[in-house]
Amino acid sequence: MAKIAFIGLGNMGAPMVVNLVKAGHEVRVFDLVEEAVQQVAAQGAIAVDSARNTLLGAEFLISMLQTGKQVEGLMLTGEALLTHINPTALVVDCSTIDAETAKEMAQAAADKGIEFVDAPVSGGTAGAAAATLSFMVGGSEGAFERARPILETMGQNIFHAGGNGAGQLAKACNNLLLAVLMAGTAEALNLGIRCGLDPKVLSDIMLKSSGRNWALELYNPVPGVMEGVPASKDYHPGFMVDLMCKDLGLAMEASLASQSAIPMGSLARGLFNLHQGQDNGTLDFSSIFKLYRRDA
Amino acid sequence: MAKIAFIGLGNMGAPMVVNLVKAGHEVRVFDLVEEAVQQVAAQGAIAVDSARNTLLGAEFLISMLQTGKQVEGLMLTGEALLTHINPTALVVDCSTIDAETAKEMAQAAADKGIEFVDAPVSGGTAGAAAATLSFMVGGSEGAFERARPILETMGQNIFHAGGNGAGQLAKACNNLLLAVLMAGTAEALNLGIRCGLDPKVLSDIMLKSSGRNWALELYNPVPGVMEGVPASKDYHPGFMVDLMCKDLGLAMEASLASQSAIPMGSLARGLFNLHQGQDNGTLDFSSIFKLYRRDA
Amino acid sequence: MAKIAFIGLGNMGAPMVVNLVKAGHEVRVFDLVEEAVQQVAAQGAIAVDSARNTLLGAEFLISMLQTGKQVEGLMLTGEALLTHINPTALVVDCSTIDAETAKEMAQAAADKGIEFVDAPVSGGTAGAAAATLSFMVGGSEGAFERARPILETMGQNIFHAGGNGAGQLAKACNNLLLAVLMAGTAEALNLGIRCGLDPKVLSDIMLKSSGRNWALELYNPVPGVMEGVPASKDYHPGFMVDLMCKDLGLAMEASLASQSAIPMGSLARGLFNLHQGQDNGTLDFSSIFKLYRRDA
Amino acid sequence: MAKIAFIGLGNMGAPMVVNLVKAGHEVRVFDLVEEAVQQVAAQGAIAVDSARNTLLGAEFLISMLQTGKQVEGLMLTGEALLTHINPTALVVDCSTIDAETAKEMAQAAADKGIEFVDAPVSGGTAGAAAATLSFMVGGSEGAFERARPILETMGQNIFHAGGNGAGQLAKACNNLLLAVLMAGTAEALNLGIRCGLDPKVLSDIMLKSSGRNWALELYNPVPGVMEGVPASKDYHPGFMVDLMCKDLGLAMEASLASQSAIPMGSLARGLFNLHQGQDNGTLDFSSIFKLYRRDA
Repeated sequence: MAKIAFIGLGNMGAPMVVNLVKAGHEVRVFDLVEEAVQQVAAQGAIAVDSARNTLLGAEFLISMLQTGKQVEGLMLTGEALLTHINPTALVVDCSTIDAETAKEMAQAAADKGIEFVDAPVSGGTAGAAAATLSFMVGGSEGAFERARPILETMGQNIFHAGGNGAGQLAKACNNLLLAVLMAGTAEALNLGIRCGLDPKVLSDIMLKSSGRNWALELYNPVPGVMEGVPASKDYHPGFMVDLMCKDLGLAMEASLASQSAIPMGSLARGLFNLHQGQDNGTLDFSSIFKLYRRDA
Repeated sequence: MAKIAFIGLGNMGAPMVVNLVKAGHEVRVFDLVEEAVQQVAAQGAIAVDSARNTLLGAEFLISMLQTGKQVEGLMLTGEALLTHINPTALVVDCSTIDAETAKEMAQAAADKGIEFVDAPVSGGTAGAAAATLSFMVGGSEGAFERARPILETMGQNIFHAGGNGAGQLAKACNNLLLAVLMAGTAEALNLGIRCGLDPKVLSDIMLKSSGRNWALELYNPVPGVMEGVPASKDYHPGFMVDLMCKDLGLAMEASLASQSAIPMGSLARGLFNLHQGQDNGTLDFSSIFKLYRRDA
Repeated sequence: MAKIAFIGLGNMGAPMVVNLVKAGHEVRVFDLVEEAVQQVAAQGAIAVDSARNTLLGAEFLISMLQTGKQVEGLMLTGEALLTHINPTALVVDCSTIDAETAKEMAQAAADKGIEFVDAPVSGGTAGAAAATLSFMVGGSEGAFERARPILETMGQNIFHAGGNGAGQLAKACNNLLLAVLMAGTAEALNLGIRCGLDPKVLSDIMLKSSGRNWALELYNPVPGVMEGVPASKDYHPGFMVDLMCKDLGLAMEASLASQSAIPMGSLARGLFNLHQGQDNGTLDFSSIFKLYRRDA
Repeated sequence: MAKIAFIGLGNMGAPMVVNLVKAGHEVRVFDLVEEAVQQVAAQGAIAVDSARNTLLGAEFLISMLQTGKQVEGLMLTGEALLTHINPTALVVDCSTIDAETAKEMAQAAADKGIEFVDAPVSGGTAGAAAATLSFMVGGSEGAFERARPILETMGQNIFHAGGNGAGQLAKACNNLLLAVLMAGTAEALNLGIRCGLDPKVLSDIMLKSSGRNWALELYNPVPGVMEGVPASKDYHPGFMVDLMCKDLGLAMEASLASQSAIPMGSLARGLFNLHQGQDNGTLDFSSIFKLYRRDA
């Protein structure tokens, strides 16, 4: 079993730690929110009083933060964990951030002889709890193989997307496409409804036709069509509009950096931004259906 | 076994007739292209020399034409088959046309005591040959049940979309969504490629993630990623850009008639129109990837 | 002075009649709304009790209706004025309708030896009252020259756009572009505001720069920036969102008929449709700014 | 007369220096391209052999570079002119860069007691030569007033957009709107052409109607409609597609930073990116008309 330092105990990080503990790992944890630390400590993690103190004997450092600036602060400029960690440890950043920062962190780590992978996840809080997350990993083949057994404790699909930053880029591409799928699905269903079709019937038809997609299969955005999904629970998230807007921002940055044309994704971003601006930021992202349909 | 009149023996109609014949039906056929008539006659259909002469003893009239105007000409204004057909026969129009004309034809038929369903298909020429088409049927419950056994001879999924016109509307919604999926998938893959990701690896990741959709599963638009698809055969169709543009026009008409907002579909239509205008109308619609990437 | 039959006395038609009367013409008027007839009769028009009775001695027939179907009903199928009018009269349809119907009406008129022009207007109710409308005329050179002096009584700019239907097409193109200008201007100003710029200062800068356009010059969509415009009167129209959506539908039909790519206009239509669907149909179209900014 | 240090002697910077010299100022110049230095030296500027050596006695430092990183390198990290300049001098950065960097430079300057304004220009190389540029200035009222007389030597419209960064933001908003205007104008004209209208006639109509805008007035994108514009010179720039894409990237960054919805601008960016990707980067940006029309 491994000694693991884990920083960032939010909605995603906390259940991930629990799964690591269940698998028998020794996990030292820290978060700026004291209560979050106590909660996972109650389930077997070892609470420490600073980010730096998680590093004691650590073979792995896993971080699960919100922004590139936070990751940079943790690793390099503020807490500077890259300076204090045992250089034989592997650093696994599971935060969803921009590829540019991911590459810079990996380079800074490499300069100190430390291996670093970016490993953003998909699957949401439910996936974190059930250890069914997908990890999209960017880094060397060797570092990927080192990370894999640990990631398998927390997830189901562990992908090697490519070199450093590739995990972040793969997630950005996927979530760009997801935004397009969801907006397109909401739009097609709304068109059908306005033309007099039953959304359940239309959904069934499209599921067996070339309109089939993840949103239609697992996450129908029309209230009442599918049980248990956010649309049938007043759009209680799930995956918040605010987070989709953040991820679309990361895709936009990838587009800017690579001078790529992303008209469909840009429009999806525009629609989600309009929707967010109408006070819907904390709803589930399938609530984009409301932008199409006032009475939803 | 039934006596069936069948008009329209193009790429789709011809194999559909063959499947009807194989199932033991007596099929009288007509097409303006004499050669097309001879080809299906050689496989057991009964060639006649005019649309009207297909009607002899017909219990079913099936039409597979290109446009609403053609259907109107056949049924009402020109050949006027609705005037000459036995009123106990069921009329099944498998053409993909606008819902408005479908409703008008159904009403004209009803005025003469004739049952009429719109039953556009999806599944392409391969599905027509293999009898695995999907049919989206608009009409009364009774008419749908009458049509079903005949349609099952030619297809696999027979959906009752709703009243008259609903079949056309369901197809328009589905193909609107398909255009969005394909453009979005091409765009996400191109973004990944430009950022240095391998399109095969990225496709595999998104297939197991929330970007999963029909285009990614069965019809990857990047040359070389998937075997046997149009993208790997110089975009030999498959489903032509010209036809996708036609179908997007039908969705646009549904949007106009119902005053629905379809920004994503409208943009997809814009992109396919731009692509068509650059001399790509006869390529497979997955060639939209070329709009993103010159060297594809 | 001429004898003129005038049908359609709404917000636009009524003041147009008044200007014809002021110029000394003898104007027989009809509208289905009795009150509208009485109002213009009080200002010198001659009230008659049916559309057909306006035709007495008419040298010109001017119509100002809402839809292509209404025009067709008036001219051809219902009132059939083309059958009853003196064939030497000139028919001037000022309604904003689809080019297809305009061409069909012109052809039907030509079949009876009657000259017909489509002459949709721009300039709004204020322009109608002040006789400063623009007319975009489609028809033969000769018919245009016959219509011109009458139109000059009601407007300022009389354009010969081309053959029959060209007036409608020119208006569709113009209003498509107008929708793009207004949405783009609202968007650029909102971006500036969110970034901390003063909308008045930013407007002044863009007015002297390459962002200059009609919306910025005469119709600023941000409340308080410009006096007297709808934005500064709670978006009291002006030109209603519902009408803009109608005109964008006409542009869409022109795009469908000509297989033209109109991505920018399609997106503008999508945004105006979304805005309309949120209960804003009767507001001025500059209220699209509200879609961007909740607190506007 | 003032002593001025000027860095960056490209297509814009060189003629700006010439105008400063003509006005009697003493201008020390530097550029990495030796030839560029010699050219303006031949017209009266004082050539020096390093960026730092321009600072001798400088009351003003004017920079005209390409990117935020270059400006940062010049001011702060590389040449570090902010460390070597006389603190009573005013720094005027005329580069078009991101607002974030502009603010950081202003802050870094302020930390040393130096005043700094961002002052990006519009008006192109023609405007630079004719001293008719527009300057959009961000900075304190006092700094703006200090910069004004110098800027008036090179331009016509000197705007105070707001505090530091506001000049960059105003330019980003304006050019976002410009991209929308140009794409919309090209699209409306192409629609008209495809519907059979004459582009010159349609342009004239829209110029006197609500479609009027800068592109239509001064920069018609259809070859042959207007003399002397890039469209009538094989799209010889003018303002290159590559530069428009760069500016749209800056607008996108402003949108990301302020979480603003910019669907119209995002689509325009998508279209310009697609066009750029088809080998048109060095054409004038009005060549977006070619994306709509193959044979243009």
